[in-house]
Amino acid sequence: MTDVATARRSRLTPEREAELYEAVLDLLREVGYDALTMDAVAARTRSSKATLYRQWGGKAQLVVRALRQCKPHHLNDIDTGSLRGDLHAMVSQEDDCAMEQTSALMRGIAMAIHTNADLREAFSDQLIDPEMADFRKILERAIARGEVRSDCPALDFLLHMLVGGFATRALLDDKPPTQEFLISYVDAVVLPALGVHASS
Amino acid sequence: MTDVATARRSRLTPEREAELYEAVLDLLREVGYDALTMDAVAARTRSSKATLYRQWGGKAQLVVRALRQCKPHHLNDIDTGSLRGDLHAMVSQEDDCAMEQTSALMRGIAMAIHTNADLREAFSDQLIDPEMADFRKILERAIARGEVRSDCPALDFLLHMLVGGFATRALLDDKPPTQEFLISYVDAVVLPALGVHASS
Repeated sequence: MTDVATARRSRLTPEREAELYEAVLDLLREVGYDALTMDAVAARTRSSKATLYRQWGGKAQLVVRALRQCKPHHLNDIDTGSLRGDLHAMVSQEDDCAMEQTSALMRGIAMAIHTNADLREAFSDQLIDPEMADFRKILERAIARGEVRSDCPALDFLLHMLVGGFATRALLDDKPPTQEFLISYVDAVVLPALGVHASS
Repeated sequence: MTDVATARRSRLTPEREAELYEAVLDLLREVGYDALTMDAVAARTRSSKATLYRQWGGKAQLVVRALRQCKPHHLNDIDTGSLRGDLHAMVSQEDDCAMEQTSALMRGIAMAIHTNADLREAFSDQLIDPEMADFRKILERAIARGEVRSDCPALDFLLHMLVGGFATRALLDDKPPTQEFLISYVDAVVLPALGVHASS
């Protein structure tokens, strides 16, 4: 969606929108996606359900938009001159506390994604696809610099490696993902899989 | 727990136990861990709650034991003579249909693991730790054969890579994990991260 379309559709101030998104994420962490209702969002934010539906179309769109807006940083700001630098910058964007919050949000919707087609579609269109496009720019620069071969098979699995490491840290080690863990993981797994030596 | 201890404690035939575990897994897929009650297990299997508690101690232990028993194969049967062969054999133990069932079960408990300390402990003791120990044998043989350096940093992240690839396939690609996907992932990510070339 273009900024023009967003502006035309929106009748809320940016501050009011931010407040709404924060309330949606709080509810998501508290009760999970399936138990989160538009009634609860309306009550907590003192808005009308009609406004919520007019503005976002439905629960899936509202939740995904809230998830998207809560990411304070964006990958396309990153360009350090090396792939290792870019990936380290990427996993250092959130401090450990923010990362644990993100981890809780992801758990809150992981199961719902498999049973709600509209959530899956919004999640894919608004979160995965843009993330992939930004990743591709980082990787294309690494290929152009000669750091990674353009036919390296691991290029297809970059998000699986990274999201997998992030998501399994808590499951396998009973520890939250931290910057320190993710930097070790990038150096030990992601860069070697891409044929880049950690010392470069 | 030794087989002797299991036999002494058990008053159920192996067939009856298998039937109970199947019912627990069905319930887990249907309603998830939090909504699964011992009452429901007792009702569905026509057993008394007292029997269930005497036999398993509690819901967490019963669910984890059921998850463990439903794995028909074990890693310690695998010894093909190469790391690539061992990892391919490992990801080929379950057919695609069984893998999708496993994927659904994992989603069913992933969120509960973070909020139930007793489930987390049973999951770690009875599923993660034995899996890690079997993995270690596969890796030790690969090190002894000279395929992997004993100080390779990726050795610490083998389960993160594999479970991560498995778990994120559905989330990122909206496709179930299949043998074909996991074999590509092992060749593109896991083996190169361990310093093994896919052609070996």
